[in-house]
Amino acid sequence: MAHLSDIEIANSVEMKPIKEVAAPLGLKEEDLTLYGNYKAKLDARELTRLENEKDGKLILVTAITPTPAGEGKTTTSVGLADAFTKLGKKAMIALREPSLGPVFGVKGGAAGGGHAQVVPMEDINLHFTGDFHAIGAANNLLAALIDNHIHHGNALGIDSRNITWKRVVDMNDRQLRHIVNGLQGRVNGVPREDGYDITVASEIMAVLCLSNDIDDLKEKLKNMVVAYNFEGKPVTAGDLKAEGAMAALLKDAIHPNLVQTLEHTPAIIHGGPFANIAHGCNSIIATKMAMKYADYAITEAGFGADLGAEKFIDIKCRLGNIKPDAVVLVATIRALKMHGGIHKKELEPENVEAVVKGLTNLDKHIENIQDVYGLPVVVAINKFPLDTDAEIEAVEKACKERGVEVVLSDVWANGGEGGIELAEKVMELAEQDNSFSYVYDLEDSIEEKLTKIVQKVYGGKGIELTGPAKKQLKQLEELGYDKLPICMAKTQYSFSDDATLVGAPKDFTITIKNLKVSAGAGFIVALTGAVMTMPGLPKSPASERIDIDEEGNITGLF
Amino acid sequence: MAHLSDIEIANSVEMKPIKEVAAPLGLKEEDLTLYGNYKAKLDARELTRLENEKDGKLILVTAITPTPAGEGKTTTSVGLADAFTKLGKKAMIALREPSLGPVFGVKGGAAGGGHAQVVPMEDINLHFTGDFHAIGAANNLLAALIDNHIHHGNALGIDSRNITWKRVVDMNDRQLRHIVNGLQGRVNGVPREDGYDITVASEIMAVLCLSNDIDDLKEKLKNMVVAYNFEGKPVTAGDLKAEGAMAALLKDAIHPNLVQTLEHTPAIIHGGPFANIAHGCNSIIATKMAMKYADYAITEAGFGADLGAEKFIDIKCRLGNIKPDAVVLVATIRALKMHGGIHKKELEPENVEAVVKGLTNLDKHIENIQDVYGLPVVVAINKFPLDTDAEIEAVEKACKERGVEVVLSDVWANGGEGGIELAEKVMELAEQDNSFSYVYDLEDSIEEKLTKIVQKVYGGKGIELTGPAKKQLKQLEELGYDKLPICMAKTQYSFSDDATLVGAPKDFTITIKNLKVSAGAGFIVALTGAVMTMPGLPKSPASERIDIDEEGNITGLF
Repeated sequence: MAHLSDIEIANSVEMKPIKEVAAPLGLKEEDLTLYGNYKAKLDARELTRLENEKDGKLILVTAITPTPAGEGKTTTSVGLADAFTKLGKKAMIALREPSLGPVFGVKGGAAGGGHAQVVPMEDINLHFTGDFHAIGAANNLLAALIDNHIHHGNALGIDSRNITWKRVVDMNDRQLRHIVNGLQGRVNGVPREDGYDITVASEIMAVLCLSNDIDDLKEKLKNMVVAYNFEGKPVTAGDLKAEGAMAALLKDAIHPNLVQTLEHTPAIIHGGPFANIAHGCNSIIATKMAMKYADYAITEAGFGADLGAEKFIDIKCRLGNIKPDAVVLVATIRALKMHGGIHKKELEPENVEAVVKGLTNLDKHIENIQDVYGLPVVVAINKFPLDTDAEIEAVEKACKERGVEVVLSDVWANGGEGGIELAEKVMELAEQDNSFSYVYDLEDSIEEKLTKIVQKVYGGKGIELTGPAKKQLKQLEELGYDKLPICMAKTQYSFSDDATLVGAPKDFTITIKNLKVSAGAGFIVALTGAVMTMPGLPKSPASERIDIDEEGNITGLF
Repeated sequence: MAHLSDIEIANSVEMKPIKEVAAPLGLKEEDLTLYGNYKAKLDARELTRLENEKDGKLILVTAITPTPAGEGKTTTSVGLADAFTKLGKKAMIALREPSLGPVFGVKGGAAGGGHAQVVPMEDINLHFTGDFHAIGAANNLLAALIDNHIHHGNALGIDSRNITWKRVVDMNDRQLRHIVNGLQGRVNGVPREDGYDITVASEIMAVLCLSNDIDDLKEKLKNMVVAYNFEGKPVTAGDLKAEGAMAALLKDAIHPNLVQTLEHTPAIIHGGPFANIAHGCNSIIATKMAMKYADYAITEAGFGADLGAEKFIDIKCRLGNIKPDAVVLVATIRALKMHGGIHKKELEPENVEAVVKGLTNLDKHIENIQDVYGLPVVVAINKFPLDTDAEIEAVEKACKERGVEVVLSDVWANGGEGGIELAEKVMELAEQDNSFSYVYDLEDSIEEKLTKIVQKVYGGKGIELTGPAKKQLKQLEELGYDKLPICMAKTQYSFSDDATLVGAPKDFTITIKNLKVSAGAGFIVALTGAVMTMPGLPKSPASERIDIDEEGNITGLF
């Protein structure tokens, strides 16, 4: 097989008009707001009309603990959906929208890979239907209103040293991480320290993704804490009367976007919150709509099953009142080797021993999905050319002992055809009864919730709160925010808070360094270390290789 | 007539699907990229195909020197186009896109007024088709690339004290006017002074509006000067290899947007550069397409006929190789009274004497249009309820002496019906031969160009250059930028550079304080004073009154 780039493969396939893609789901042209021939917005308000209709099965695609070797979760999700379509089932995927900023950084865009992609990939990677810009505008309107309020007399008594709301831009721009603004005299604002996040890190992104409708969106926007006053009391977006204008800016962004896979399976791509300081899943509205329109709705959660899937369950499923019917756990032989202690440069030769050693990681995730989340699971090995039979057999053998099947997924090379076996297994699992459960109760104290996540999901001993976190915990309790779910912000590279501990470490303690409320989104962020919310560009950024010709054809995205 | 707000009037009219609006122009569905039912993008590449087709007549709508009383240029443009439609002519308007930022400031949006509006006004005012966000992203990518280049070793030797490229946001946010960024250590950029402009002030906005196609766009983007190196030599976007990625970000923004008036006349709304540091007109591509598709293409230029129309002619017409066939000069009785020295609060009672006194302003504009620009002109009095017959007669009498007709325009109250007489007169004028000419030659020296504008158009004695401007002039000559047209950045409230001198002042000198090159857009900006490129919000911003209901209906835009 010639090694074509993702964009070359994408361009080699002729897309169907989005109307035709939507038709098998029973969607008519008037149900779509077209953005050209190949993109459309669905109408979020339809969820109300469809309230009593039967839901399709919800399939969650998650993965083992990520390594630099990559696991291919999105590729697997896309290929699985295409496999369902090949089997004559109504299937739909619900995925996150990619961020614009990283497109110009190391790699130029992402929407699956190989023969398992969503298209039109140039559009999806560049502006798409404008959702992220709308979120950025709403975020920056609120920021402007905060400083404008202070400038005009500060009736709310906002402490300018204690403003938690940052401005955002959808760009990798390290220069904006830490700034001082409001300089050069009294007509130009009030000098203070400030900083920028990338748009996906905005709380508004999480709010949009966790809202069930426009009213819910407005209520959540209103509740967002933007600063504290001189008495230490929270100041909200509602105090600045900002929620109406922000919601107006999000009038289109709230509606899910419909595109297609290379094999014309309908794909909803909607919302893309950060997977560390937020929950890292596409919108509730998108997932619910996929469940209404399709028999199989396939969605994914960020990072590994300890982090993304836990938040998917404890935050998204809880707030959206949905539950998955089956879980696909994606692994690669390469990544298992890395969990077995092998360096990225030494992955090519066969090494069954390393695979077996790395299976501790896979094993712990299986245990979590089955025993903690109470869901049926299948392991999908995302196939790479150099994987050997012996390596794959080692995985199959270990999983068999747990009663879990392993399926090879070859969707990168073969599209839906390469995912047929996986789809058949998923269909079988989704018919099983399950004992779905959350990891903790909302009524648990913050410490209890944290402890349950660490002990049940991570396999650690418990938690330790630093001085600031202890103080913050008291404040959150006093302010009545302690009944919210927890959003863990932890390294994705380990079950522990130490990125170097691969496999399945034990006897560790998770140190909680900070506890912050996202009162609009509706969760408490537990930070175990510094989180980078504004990336930078490399020395030779991808932007240098991106171009467009006279006919509008784009090159350099891959 | 009940006093409905603009948005109430807009909502009371049922829009036609944009496909139907486009059909009379010979445009088929496949010629349109739909953005929902009521917005579409035309294909800029069609201009090449239509190159040898006959052009329609180009009508420029301009105005007397603006006053706080308002003149209603956009309303007149829209109503005039509707009147042409009523007369059975193929007409199209080409207007600027409104900026998002000001929507949340003093007033909530603008796209004409009364019964002469373009719709859907909520969409046009909120994100529209995303053009401004795309321009903002391209602008901020370039900014990130500049700082990233310095951070990674600064091979180009960029002097961080001499970076002219600012970041932008489409928001009124005074807090960002002057900032220091790159703070907190070596992994977070290089500390320097910086600042933000509102998106419409980005040179990329001017570049987009002055480009004839994608190749031209890329070339102009490449030429933009972003900084100077330690030797004082310009560093361009091309030096940072940024033009390809920027042009890719503008892949959709370059295509003009099609909407409709309340009476279903097709309206192109595309691009919206600042009218002071840039030329203040919609895109060349939009105007050219309107001329190809319609028999009458109506467009407008920012501010008064001394400023906007001069730049329309000397910059836009020159770079686009187009020329207007007739000019509509909009005036109001109220504004003439203010030019006659009356305060805004005392405009209501009849005051023929003040009107007559204010006619000096109208008169000078007529002289400019006829004798300097060499174009036929009609005066349109945009009617207000309290205008008296005697006041209007005074205007008619004075104009008659110049051989210019005065037509009452009642389009605010009556839509196209109120503009029939104006349209008939415009049709007549557009058939006349004219002696269209630029105000200066490109081969003139910078000083000659400036002097010609001041003496011929403003009626002043001449120019005076401050010390910095003299130095900058020399630099521009040395760098070979002196053959570019001039973009005057002068107060719009007077022919002079003193905003308090209403009417038609004489014997004044224009002081040029700074000369800057916009090497991408292709003009030299001559600054006569401080120009505000980032507005602020008022104490009680319009955002507080904007809202959206469960069905997505927006209120508070007007």
